[in-house]
Amino acid sequence: MILITNDDGYAANGLHKLTTLMRTLGDVAVISTDEMMSAKSHSCTIHEKLRPRLIHEEQGFKEFRCNGTPVDCVKLAYQKLLPRHPDLVVSGINHGTNAASTVVYSGTIGAVIEACMNGLTAIGFSLDSFDPEADLDHLDTAILEITKKVLKEGLPQGVCLNVNFPKRSEEPLKGIKVCRQANCRWVEYFHEHIDENGELYYDLEGELVSNDVRPGTDLYAIKQNYVAVVPTCYDWTAYACLETMKDYEQISIKS
Amino acid sequence: MILITNDDGYAANGLHKLTTLMRTLGDVAVISTDEMMSAKSHSCTIHEKLRPRLIHEEQGFKEFRCNGTPVDCVKLAYQKLLPRHPDLVVSGINHGTNAASTVVYSGTIGAVIEACMNGLTAIGFSLDSFDPEADLDHLDTAILEITKKVLKEGLPQGVCLNVNFPKRSEEPLKGIKVCRQANCRWVEYFHEHIDENGELYYDLEGELVSNDVRPGTDLYAIKQNYVAVVPTCYDWTAYACLETMKDYEQISIKS
Repeated sequence: MILITNDDGYAANGLHKLTTLMRTLGDVAVISTDEMMSAKSHSCTIHEKLRPRLIHEEQGFKEFRCNGTPVDCVKLAYQKLLPRHPDLVVSGINHGTNAASTVVYSGTIGAVIEACMNGLTAIGFSLDSFDPEADLDHLDTAILEITKKVLKEGLPQGVCLNVNFPKRSEEPLKGIKVCRQANCRWVEYFHEHIDENGELYYDLEGELVSNDVRPGTDLYAIKQNYVAVVPTCYDWTAYACLETMKDYEQISIKS
Repeated sequence: MILITNDDGYAANGLHKLTTLMRTLGDVAVISTDEMMSAKSHSCTIHEKLRPRLIHEEQGFKEFRCNGTPVDCVKLAYQKLLPRHPDLVVSGINHGTNAASTVVYSGTIGAVIEACMNGLTAIGFSLDSFDPEADLDHLDTAILEITKKVLKEGLPQGVCLNVNFPKRSEEPLKGIKVCRQANCRWVEYFHEHIDENGELYYDLEGELVSNDVRPGTDLYAIKQNYVAVVPTCYDWTAYACLETMKDYEQISIKS
């Protein structure tokens, strides 16, 4: 059984496309969020009631919705809602890139990492376009072939896949590149407003800024019209520093 | 100037302790969340109004509160509220461990990573006790000495510190260990309830489960009564897999 979730909510085209594709591969359960949960990262719900509902059921297919975050959805689905652990968890297709270090904000990838931390095989799929009506048909073969390979071979323990696609262009996708995560950041514009009570508030708009399009990165691959596959882990240790920072152990903390 | 934030909200003892300590080192600005924001991870607010308020001001000290997440607090503070970029961002002291892979859920560390992504020097401090009244006085020297070293020497680009403390015991802290992140997971118990309308809901309780207390990990260090310092990065690439997964590039995606 394949479990599908996303962070754009139950009505998103990307979720429907991914569901259609996965149903050609086997039994499918969908658990989507009631609301748009972009930028919810790995947050989970510890002080509110979680209300998953079975929306639709037919042979080989179940659909749930839930008021929680994508991480909540994964937790609930594999622990409470499904008759057995899924063979694979897929998340997306996200309307918007999760390439480069934007991955840290992503609810789509939060769900994938949650699955991975619990020993489940997991893939996130995202398109480099925030247009909710963006064309997705050019992704069919790549999604199916990557998924079939993962279903057949599994993934190394503690590793999931973050797959990012270029948006549709004149030329077909060139192929797949296995990449490292580029370095980038959101540059925010905080718009200042005064509300009806004379109080200041801000809202937030952002733009992805990266100069890191060196060969080997996911941003470089996408720019060249390749599918970027980043093997992704939840061990955030900066291993290169373990030796160089040993002098912290010399600090005297006797008080 | 040192910027302080946390995810336990403005009233937390850990925030007050950290503020008291940092004020011995220089000018301080605090921006805390209106509410408890545990398990908010790296989430940020893109569809709601952010309302930071200046609560208190005196020579060398400013205190703000904000309705957003810890990541929002950092973004707003360094971009809008402070006269210049802080020399250091510190987050905590969190009431509860952020050691091992629990780091992915942490709002405290979300703030630290946000700062780091924007080129700021940043440290997160957390205590291995969820008791909001837990004793914090045994941490003073360690926090001050680690902070002074970081202020003097800086940190490598793209690297922040995740510092976790053992809770107070009979014996004094043994010293500092520079560690890698242990592997662990939360095991959740979803409690099933029926509400007044006869509808099913769940609430979530969890327990940290880890068998990964091998020497060199943060969990091992804490268990031995050492302070665990994990150099932490936001590059989540599983580098060991870049070569072994090259065969994904052989997949034909021509449709």
